[in-house]
Amino acid sequence: MWVRNAWYVAGWSHELEAGRILARVIIEQPLALYRKTDGQVVVLADRCCHRFAPLSMGRLEHDDLRCMYHGLKFAPDGRCVEIPGQKLIPQSALVRRYPAIERGGWMWIWMGDEALADPASIPESIRLDDPAYCMKSGQLDYAAHYLLIDDNLLDLSHLSFAHEKTLGLDMPQWADERPRILPLERGLRVERWLRGQPSRGFMKRWGETLDLWNSYDFLFPGIFLLRTAFYPVGTAERCKGAAPSEQPLFLRHDDQAVTPITSRTSRYFYAAGARRDDIDEDRVGRLFAVVQAAFNEDKMIIEAQQKLIDMDPGRRMLPTTLDAGPTQFRKLVQTLLEHDGQPGPVANATARAG
Amino acid sequence: MWVRNAWYVAGWSHELEAGRILARVIIEQPLALYRKTDGQVVVLADRCCHRFAPLSMGRLEHDDLRCMYHGLKFAPDGRCVEIPGQKLIPQSALVRRYPAIERGGWMWIWMGDEALADPASIPESIRLDDPAYCMKSGQLDYAAHYLLIDDNLLDLSHLSFAHEKTLGLDMPQWADERPRILPLERGLRVERWLRGQPSRGFMKRWGETLDLWNSYDFLFPGIFLLRTAFYPVGTAERCKGAAPSEQPLFLRHDDQAVTPITSRTSRYFYAAGARRDDIDEDRVGRLFAVVQAAFNEDKMIIEAQQKLIDMDPGRRMLPTTLDAGPTQFRKLVQTLLEHDGQPGPVANATARAG
Amino acid sequence: MWVRNAWYVAGWSHELEAGRILARVIIEQPLALYRKTDGQVVVLADRCCHRFAPLSMGRLEHDDLRCMYHGLKFAPDGRCVEIPGQKLIPQSALVRRYPAIERGGWMWIWMGDEALADPASIPESIRLDDPAYCMKSGQLDYAAHYLLIDDNLLDLSHLSFAHEKTLGLDMPQWADERPRILPLERGLRVERWLRGQPSRGFMKRWGETLDLWNSYDFLFPGIFLLRTAFYPVGTAERCKGAAPSEQPLFLRHDDQAVTPITSRTSRYFYAAGARRDDIDEDRVGRLFAVVQAAFNEDKMIIEAQQKLIDMDPGRRMLPTTLDAGPTQFRKLVQTLLEHDGQPGPVANATARAG
Repeated sequence: MWVRNAWYVAGWSHELEAGRILARVIIEQPLALYRKTDGQVVVLADRCCHRFAPLSMGRLEHDDLRCMYHGLKFAPDGRCVEIPGQKLIPQSALVRRYPAIERGGWMWIWMGDEALADPASIPESIRLDDPAYCMKSGQLDYAAHYLLIDDNLLDLSHLSFAHEKTLGLDMPQWADERPRILPLERGLRVERWLRGQPSRGFMKRWGETLDLWNSYDFLFPGIFLLRTAFYPVGTAERCKGAAPSEQPLFLRHDDQAVTPITSRTSRYFYAAGARRDDIDEDRVGRLFAVVQAAFNEDKMIIEAQQKLIDMDPGRRMLPTTLDAGPTQFRKLVQTLLEHDGQPGPVANATARAG
Repeated sequence: MWVRNAWYVAGWSHELEAGRILARVIIEQPLALYRKTDGQVVVLADRCCHRFAPLSMGRLEHDDLRCMYHGLKFAPDGRCVEIPGQKLIPQSALVRRYPAIERGGWMWIWMGDEALADPASIPESIRLDDPAYCMKSGQLDYAAHYLLIDDNLLDLSHLSFAHEKTLGLDMPQWADERPRILPLERGLRVERWLRGQPSRGFMKRWGETLDLWNSYDFLFPGIFLLRTAFYPVGTAERCKGAAPSEQPLFLRHDDQAVTPITSRTSRYFYAAGARRDDIDEDRVGRLFAVVQAAFNEDKMIIEAQQKLIDMDPGRRMLPTTLDAGPTQFRKLVQTLLEHDGQPGPVANATARAG
Repeated sequence: MWVRNAWYVAGWSHELEAGRILARVIIEQPLALYRKTDGQVVVLADRCCHRFAPLSMGRLEHDDLRCMYHGLKFAPDGRCVEIPGQKLIPQSALVRRYPAIERGGWMWIWMGDEALADPASIPESIRLDDPAYCMKSGQLDYAAHYLLIDDNLLDLSHLSFAHEKTLGLDMPQWADERPRILPLERGLRVERWLRGQPSRGFMKRWGETLDLWNSYDFLFPGIFLLRTAFYPVGTAERCKGAAPSEQPLFLRHDDQAVTPITSRTSRYFYAAGARRDDIDEDRVGRLFAVVQAAFNEDKMIIEAQQKLIDMDPGRRMLPTTLDAGPTQFRKLVQTLLEHDGQPGPVANATARAG
């Protein structure tokens, strides 16, 4: 049901303050997150091996975590190092520890076989505290399966409809600008030109309309790294629809992550912004207000969609030609599920999905 | 589990304003209701065939309804007439449409085979805006199976107990005035005399006590059309218990409908009043306040009953002689279920149930 | 799943006022409690045999209880004595009645075979209105299986951790003072010395530290009768760890009862205090405030534990040497379950459990 051998975003780095313990659930596994005194993130199963009290209600003692029900103490590697009232500590006294890494703005957790955890496979996103960038971030809890959110992000034609008053304002032609979809190691690259879009706000200085190069990598389980590059009208034509090589007038970054919690709950992390050279706090604030409004539109429609699916679980959807992205990605997820834990199948999986 | 070939009350006509889309659920089917520009009610499955977003979150475009997730547009007959980004519209691109009719104060929806939908089988009730009548209306949501509400309406002996301070005030003998029960095409007729009942309010002008002819048709799924006719004491005696032929002193109308939503939720619609010649707004208001109080008494007891049934689902009830109405009606429902979709069995069904 | 042949605490005596009907659920059985005119507690199944309306919504008529749905009336022995509209009352018209007794501060109900109900097996606890005692009482609803609360009470080593700021303040050595555990007829006796504990409040008059003799009987389903006796330092040493024979400086009483409602809900009743000769209202109040705070700590951790168990129901706990109490008691419960309704197995059960 779940792909275990994958990096999942557990949260923003700033959510985990020194000295605190965060309780999270990812793919139905309860997790306790804390920082060692050197700042490194530790992730243990949030369930004491003794009587299943949550370690996240426990107490940090230097780099160790003590369960505050009957006092068992665990080292950062998950081994029990103290059992009150008992000298001998059995080998089986341990909780699972999960590899964790901070990269970009996020804490990433590997939910599968530790031997397969490769930090190199974590994609690059913008750190919220990167001084070169001005980013704003938020998050949203969904009462829906994560793949419904992925579907949403893999078919941006919904911008003209679900977001006709926010992200898709005056942009009715998303459905007509068919994207190119390329297979990636564990996801898809989706890119397209949007020609002659009306300029808004500070971008009007470059003309009434602009060409947009809209390009994102979408990686399992729901990492969405969108770059929107604005060009003078005519650039798309000149590039013959291919990727532009020249510098854009403006480059906007949207980094997002979907994390499955249970089969009917998910958490959605998002950040939007640009280089400080290109934008100021105030403009990012206005841009971000639109993002927040739009994501609440998505949440409403996707949660309603989940309820309708659950009212008639056997019913089949009717794919359209715009569903190429969602359809390919779901095939990839299916292949990942079938090969979960077997090293090396991913390239094949992608090849087949693509 | 559900009788599909039947007319169900979806709501009051005034609930569906021009230009709005109402989301309803009947027998676990999600429905989107709207009016065409000519005012006619359209009912479509509230689930886009593409990705199951609710059409009730969509946009009306003249007589059509557009899904506002990815923009598919549907005609009033359920056929998809536009798929953004795609020229060809497959035959399978459609949502179910349900026959709908406004009659009396209600919108009626046929949930089964369209070929069997016969508007003539919809019973007559008083229109709320009929200028000859002064009616007040309300509705109540139940956390209970609809048949428990039907049971309640088919055995009015509960008035002396559940409603001892409202509808049954000073009328302890409901259980003693055994009704006559007659089979109808898809229901039962229940009628009885209540002799020498104390007069109340404006009816005191006709004497301290009155005879009441209490008569209702009860039709699947829970249409309750009660007429209470007030006569001088002695009329019941003179009629030898049979239906009266002379004009009553006063005739009260109670029109009600029970609509199953899911197996544990139902909606109850009710109106009460009389001809404007016989009553004024103020008196209907007082009469209606008693009705509202009483129906909340029913709701409390029936929802509690549902919980107790669910705590021990196999347990059998102990019928009394007063349960003739509920018992016959449940047999009828059973027969309707067994013959659902086969034309013609209803007369037999009723004969057997009677 | 449930041991039926046992006395369960339904509530405090003062909860059931004359003329009122209380609705309770014990081991998933709905119960209606009321007092006869002579004050005696009557317990009937809270479900009319007719249509399963709750009798607790009914009306007391002298010693009888009338269902206020259709008016059936029941005597205190559960027999139906009136059916409105019907002369003959069938033998099967009855609701189950449960033996009930008031003892200590509580109402006890026998949930099994009436022939096996022996009031002598009800343990003694302090009556809240006993003039010789000053007790304060409270109760708490748990979203957890009752055995998780029992586990908690059978291993007091959690006081040093879960209650480090309340009941276990400055008492880190609970885990080190291993108790003696003795089998009882339907439970366990648990006793231990805690040596040289810091005195608090009014007990400082007897010295900076004291020896505590901590002893309780724990009986099915979760009756916890704790006596904490305070002695001058050195008494434990002099007694060689055995039970003290001399009068304590101060004796504290804690009487508690855990009652299973459903498999995931339980109610916890508790009282704390001492003889009026030894304590005043004000001191009991301060002592009780600590108790209340501590029991909320337990509730938080046990409800979290229940959720973690339900997230992975097959997972096995890792017992420690301090789990002797919980482990023996669960074995006893298992034996009671296997022999439920067979007279005489209890002594064997305990022998085996012990």
